[in-house]
Amino acid sequence: MGGSPERYCLRTAVEFNGTLRLIRRAGSSTCGDCWARGRSGEPGTAALPGALGRAEAEAEAGRRAPSVAAVLPAGGSGERMGVPTPKQFCPILERPLISYTLQALERVCWIKDIVVAVTGENMEVMKDIIQRYQHKHISLVEAGVTRHRSIFNALKALAEDQPNSKLAKPEVVIIHDAVRPFVEEGVLLEVVIAAKEHGAAGAIRPLVSTVISPSVDGCLDYSLERARHRASEMPQAFLFDVIYEAYQQCSDYDLEFGTECLQLALKYCHTKAKLVEGSPDLWKVTYKRDLYAAESIIKGMFVLVTHVKVTSGALCHADRDLQQIILEPCYNFVCVNVMTSDFEETQKLLNMLEKSNLSILYPVVVISVHFLDCKSVPFGQKMEHLMQIRELAKEVKKRNILLCGLLIYYPQDKQKLQESLRQGAAIIATLIKERNPGLVGQLLIA
Amino acid sequence: MGGSPERYCLRTAVEFNGTLRLIRRAGSSTCGDCWARGRSGEPGTAALPGALGRAEAEAEAGRRAPSVAAVLPAGGSGERMGVPTPKQFCPILERPLISYTLQALERVCWIKDIVVAVTGENMEVMKDIIQRYQHKHISLVEAGVTRHRSIFNALKALAEDQPNSKLAKPEVVIIHDAVRPFVEEGVLLEVVIAAKEHGAAGAIRPLVSTVISPSVDGCLDYSLERARHRASEMPQAFLFDVIYEAYQQCSDYDLEFGTECLQLALKYCHTKAKLVEGSPDLWKVTYKRDLYAAESIIKGMFVLVTHVKVTSGALCHADRDLQQIILEPCYNFVCVNVMTSDFEETQKLLNMLEKSNLSILYPVVVISVHFLDCKSVPFGQKMEHLMQIRELAKEVKKRNILLCGLLIYYPQDKQKLQESLRQGAAIIATLIKERNPGLVGQLLIA
Repeated sequence: MGGSPERYCLRTAVEFNGTLRLIRRAGSSTCGDCWARGRSGEPGTAALPGALGRAEAEAEAGRRAPSVAAVLPAGGSGERMGVPTPKQFCPILERPLISYTLQALERVCWIKDIVVAVTGENMEVMKDIIQRYQHKHISLVEAGVTRHRSIFNALKALAEDQPNSKLAKPEVVIIHDAVRPFVEEGVLLEVVIAAKEHGAAGAIRPLVSTVISPSVDGCLDYSLERARHRASEMPQAFLFDVIYEAYQQCSDYDLEFGTECLQLALKYCHTKAKLVEGSPDLWKVTYKRDLYAAESIIKGMFVLVTHVKVTSGALCHADRDLQQIILEPCYNFVCVNVMTSDFEETQKLLNMLEKSNLSILYPVVVISVHFLDCKSVPFGQKMEHLMQIRELAKEVKKRNILLCGLLIYYPQDKQKLQESLRQGAAIIATLIKERNPGLVGQLLIA
Repeated sequence: MGGSPERYCLRTAVEFNGTLRLIRRAGSSTCGDCWARGRSGEPGTAALPGALGRAEAEAEAGRRAPSVAAVLPAGGSGERMGVPTPKQFCPILERPLISYTLQALERVCWIKDIVVAVTGENMEVMKDIIQRYQHKHISLVEAGVTRHRSIFNALKALAEDQPNSKLAKPEVVIIHDAVRPFVEEGVLLEVVIAAKEHGAAGAIRPLVSTVISPSVDGCLDYSLERARHRASEMPQAFLFDVIYEAYQQCSDYDLEFGTECLQLALKYCHTKAKLVEGSPDLWKVTYKRDLYAAESIIKGMFVLVTHVKVTSGALCHADRDLQQIILEPCYNFVCVNVMTSDFEETQKLLNMLEKSNLSILYPVVVISVHFLDCKSVPFGQKMEHLMQIRELAKEVKKRNILLCGLLIYYPQDKQKLQESLRQGAAIIATLIKERNPGLVGQLLIA
């Protein structure tokens, strides 16, 4: 999701375990000196500085980064959403919500496996999502009829040492929700570290509304003091043995009607979870309005980074420039065509984008900018030339690239020119913000 | 907000008080046979069927519709929103959030007065909002430093029999939030009826997250059973004397740190509030994401009703048709120009809209549709003619009217024509859904 500028190092953080300080490293999006996950090496093999004596080695073992897996119950029916599609499969910018959540977990390099529990009827849908959006490290298990049963099924898959399973029992397991797509690496790390120390940990948030208890006749019995209570949110993390033991011990009533994993750890393993303050972004997509909010938040993520590429016959080193551009997490391209034939540069950019995988996860907006100097070419003629953008746009739309044209009127009058440019900038901002497929292939005029 | 298709009759509902049944009347947006509010007559003077004997008259008096006022504390700073503007003044489609809430209360004909508590520094802002959006029946009082103190100030204004005040002490007072703009008449009526019977009443919602209590060391102490608790939402309603007494009796601690009016009524007047299940729409705009959600919900309200006006020299009875159109709550107009000169009909519609007050509360979208038959007029020439839409759009934008053009290519080939029309419909849908000022004056092509 564009990624946070801060990255967290699990190993370094664990070494500072006593004070729970987090070491934040700016900028980098790869995890060089933290505990290497399976995808880039063997677990736990990161070289330690210097040779260790036995006592040191034991102390080091206590401090070493735990192996971590994540469990995502996704068997819900989404009845509160008021739509037939379960909420985790509702599309945001044409991609299912759960894919955003998977992406948020996948980009955390120290989460080794992600086990998703889905109902039998949605198993194929889920497999398609994994394939289409190229998710990695995902294992699927069948969901149970309640959330707790789904989590239990996922934990069993991690616990059992099945011959054909690529899953291994982790030291710490994160439990998250499929419908909380904006979870950040920082809070995941915080709950994992706290779980390693306390056995269990969970994110909390202040209450927005006062909580009350009704009497049997539907009247107010008592209200709770808001400041003394918190909403229990996700993610939560547990020592695997603690939460697995709790699920094995717990009653059918708990599995049917319980809502809180932290409560199971407390009740059956006497483990008091550490509570970690989370950010507002942890909220759970529950109602239809939450889908609207999630879509606006995701659209807002794109607004900050835009590549503006000005091309002309003289200045053009297009290919190298473009290679550079698409290495960065940028989903907006403004291609200003100067002195080249109408769509030459735009076409080059589109070819490059089509070859890359950039538009798999998010729609990429490309705005092809052209100038109209009425003195040299009549307006109508220029428009007719530029109308080929419609066919071009139709073609690249299939690859999730949203192409629009912008014709900037270029008068001699300085004030009028400024007005044109100001309006052009406003149109570009609108197209980037809205990312609306309905406007694909249009030629807007500033 | 487009209005619900169901309207509620307070008097009829109160007559069925014992069972709390609500009488819903379909369609009508005026309140003919319910208790007439100040704006259309004297309170309580609605004629009753037949002459009454004394006993009947006394029984009738017990059942009669109560006088109702509403209190809106709006002194909050909006710190959770993470923006400098207090959330109740944040714009949605360029109009402050609180104006939507005022509108939701105003359209309920049996709420006589609305008292809004705002801080001294926002008093002028609030006066401007009232004037600009033509709100009626609003009185302003100065907010206190906490929500409870603001409500108390508003109640004092209703209680005091000041010589110059146009306020009268109501029998029942509704307390609502400035940041819950989607409150419906139905739930307002339910809490008022329940308050008349029980002394106090409030809307509740199921909990989305489990509520827990942390111990002093930041660990889980206990978690509450989610099914046995509810979130206390707004609106709430009280017999005026009950809640005013509670505020007069309550401690400074309550006024500083309390969050729940129902609790005050319970603690100081031993009044157990009736709890009424509310809809998800009652949620409180708290975080920035809630503003996004609110904007999407409001935009969604417009999508359903669109007037399509096809004009031609032969068929045109424009003025009468248009008069009819703007009497209905419609904010989308598609003006299909056939056989008239380019903008003749669109201009007529715009003149009519400008004379009406339709665009005071919501942006009105007008799409001027034109057809291009390349055989009779060359493309470039048609485009040049139609470019005058830019100036037209700039002018009407000042009146909150968003004008766009749509040129539909009209080929002989039947399949291509269908494709053009399909694309035209998609563009119209996009423009109506997005209501984006950034696209004003554009000429889109299908």
